[in-house]
Amino acid sequence: MGISDKLVAFALGDCRAPEAVRAVARLSLIDWMAVAIAGKSEPVAAVMRAFAGEEGGTGQAGLIGGGRAPMRMAALVNGTVSHALDYDDTHFGHIGHPSVGVIPAALAVAEQDAAGGAALQEAALIGMEASIRFGEWLGRAHYQVGFHQTATAGAVGACVAAGRLLKLKPDQMATALGLVATRASGLKSQFGTSAKPFNAGLSASNGVEAAQMARLGMEARLGALEGPLGFGPTHHGEAVEEAFDGIGEAWRFETVSHKFHACCHGLHAVLEAAAGLDVAPDAIAAVRVETHPRWMSVCNQAAPETGLGAKFSYSTVLAMHFLGHDTARLESYSDGLCGDAHVRALRGRVEVSANEDVGEMQARLAVETRAGEVLHAFHDLDVPMALKDRRAKIAAKAAALLGTTRAQRIETLVETRAAPRELAAELAV
Amino acid sequence: MGISDKLVAFALGDCRAPEAVRAVARLSLIDWMAVAIAGKSEPVAAVMRAFAGEEGGTGQAGLIGGGRAPMRMAALVNGTVSHALDYDDTHFGHIGHPSVGVIPAALAVAEQDAAGGAALQEAALIGMEASIRFGEWLGRAHYQVGFHQTATAGAVGACVAAGRLLKLKPDQMATALGLVATRASGLKSQFGTSAKPFNAGLSASNGVEAAQMARLGMEARLGALEGPLGFGPTHHGEAVEEAFDGIGEAWRFETVSHKFHACCHGLHAVLEAAAGLDVAPDAIAAVRVETHPRWMSVCNQAAPETGLGAKFSYSTVLAMHFLGHDTARLESYSDGLCGDAHVRALRGRVEVSANEDVGEMQARLAVETRAGEVLHAFHDLDVPMALKDRRAKIAAKAAALLGTTRAQRIETLVETRAAPRELAAELAV
Repeated sequence: MGISDKLVAFALGDCRAPEAVRAVARLSLIDWMAVAIAGKSEPVAAVMRAFAGEEGGTGQAGLIGGGRAPMRMAALVNGTVSHALDYDDTHFGHIGHPSVGVIPAALAVAEQDAAGGAALQEAALIGMEASIRFGEWLGRAHYQVGFHQTATAGAVGACVAAGRLLKLKPDQMATALGLVATRASGLKSQFGTSAKPFNAGLSASNGVEAAQMARLGMEARLGALEGPLGFGPTHHGEAVEEAFDGIGEAWRFETVSHKFHACCHGLHAVLEAAAGLDVAPDAIAAVRVETHPRWMSVCNQAAPETGLGAKFSYSTVLAMHFLGHDTARLESYSDGLCGDAHVRALRGRVEVSANEDVGEMQARLAVETRAGEVLHAFHDLDVPMALKDRRAKIAAKAAALLGTTRAQRIETLVETRAAPRELAAELAV
Repeated sequence: MGISDKLVAFALGDCRAPEAVRAVARLSLIDWMAVAIAGKSEPVAAVMRAFAGEEGGTGQAGLIGGGRAPMRMAALVNGTVSHALDYDDTHFGHIGHPSVGVIPAALAVAEQDAAGGAALQEAALIGMEASIRFGEWLGRAHYQVGFHQTATAGAVGACVAAGRLLKLKPDQMATALGLVATRASGLKSQFGTSAKPFNAGLSASNGVEAAQMARLGMEARLGALEGPLGFGPTHHGEAVEEAFDGIGEAWRFETVSHKFHACCHGLHAVLEAAAGLDVAPDAIAAVRVETHPRWMSVCNQAAPETGLGAKFSYSTVLAMHFLGHDTARLESYSDGLCGDAHVRALRGRVEVSANEDVGEMQARLAVETRAGEVLHAFHDLDVPMALKDRRAKIAAKAAALLGTTRAQRIETLVETRAAPRELAAELAV
């Protein structure tokens, strides 16, 4: 059985995910909504809304920040806007952002077809799982050569979610996957520009389009994801067959990571380590960080002068943390903060060194107090977090982004499986 | 200077094409219109119109067969419909179909912006030339591994044409090319399904979208066609630098090929050879064809029973030719024709053999008469055709597809540089 056949069966079959997995998917939906709403004033969001306005069309689905558009356009706009802050979830097996590539597709279609909230959540989970599985099947070679998995594998996941919600028949779902094989695209060379979030929008939009056209009777080569001259063979895919082992029973999505700090992912392990230490800023004589060598060229700006620079600076985020600035809040990373005398004094006492023995997802921290005591801490982002802790952190992050009232309202909408239209109404504001 | 910079300068500079090249471009526009209109009743055309109907939106541009849609959608629909018959032009340097990937983009934008007919024709020519140049830069490796150049290189050409007509500034045009690098897609594995013409629609649509979004202020990585993690490096591009030699002065487009028979391209050389022989069908004792070995598995069905099979059969098309059936007409290739006693008798006297010394674009033909005479003929499709002959053949093809009156009306519209809206009105019928 080829992977396309496996994906068709997975896309259309009963969802047998255990409650523990569904609970994580709900947290990703809460997290996605919070990050999406927080991103609605970014410059790229205005460009996307202008594009939707120029095309107009049937108001099938709502846009983040207001307005309606055809579902394919809604997926494009909402995928882009929700990735604008780069603050959404990540799966490191897949090396991609599952939610931004898939949830906008599922939501746009679900709203249109008046599917219920439970059906939406199942389709989003199945689509995100499919994107991770397909991304792992493509393997590291695909990512290393320059493809943006969020966009490419994401489009397959978006197609699965959209096709499920459109209630495609098996042959239509197979056709949709054949179509998405010829449509999926997205390059890592866009990183550092607003075309990076646009790639997430492409993912969602391509998935919706393929499912929609298959329903309308379009043909395509079946098995074009993996077959001769197919997506995998042409896009440096490794065809890692084990990637599909146990699909439908085991859920890779359960190990999705959420970002709890509005800065570069390379800084998160050390901030989690620091959270375990109780020390007053005035008592700190020196801070020593050991990190994996790859991060040294990514996020080790010693004395940045801008808020953007602060997001790539071990010394600055550690100073922020010990001085009580909330590293989950976007507003915390400002040019003014970089000029603050307390921040400047404390970050001057931070030393960062590379250590091959520290994993990419790990960090070691030592804080020496003026009293001569040395406090040690270590964190590994790969160690699974208890669901309770994850829920609390996501609630705190949503509150930091949107305020407590709105964060709680979103949590309630998701936990009660509110209808897609209710979610869209919340996103419109 | 990188190829993106060269393309920006070429896209926005004065068009210095000599009249001989412009005349060929006009013939391609006439040919494209005839083939596009003839394809409007194909099943894939109905799917595309249904898709456009579902989305609705601003009626910026006309659809082949009627109706209006946003320009990005019009490019998608018209690109697909005009390639539905696979009867449009081909460039063998580029191994792609320049007109179907570029003209629909140019027309959709030109109509919207009320550009004149001369501006439309210049933009289409510049876009098609850009697609050939970029396709040659990608090289054979890109095509061999499985990418459909009509779609990938075509999107770059469509972006150039659309950007020129949208009067993008140089930095916007550079951004548009960066966006199309992350958007372009299309696989050869779709050949044999209606997703093959859809790939042509993707080309036109992706080009329009990139130009439109660049005008709206979207960002992208500049130089993403050729730079690190760019389109060429990720898509098996060979980076053939000579491909851009003399761009703006020399015109690769001039050697574009048109199809004059509504069958597989592998049969065209022998049909052209046969056209030089004057022999009555009853006088034919035997027909011997020598062709390049690659065609033997492509178009050598000995006794097909269907009209589709006839399009891949040396023996059948030669029998048709000598019996006076017009091989340029779509209707000539029918199931009934395959059952005709005269066709069956004559094709039984055709022998086909492979010969390594005959080039891919060549064919050798020997006709032995009952009187014992042997007539020899040879044709090489690579030998340029005089403009006069090409014009006459395209007029005859258009007349075979649409009738003489309509074919002449289209020729007049194009030769008088009619406004884009007039062309769209003709296509709508």
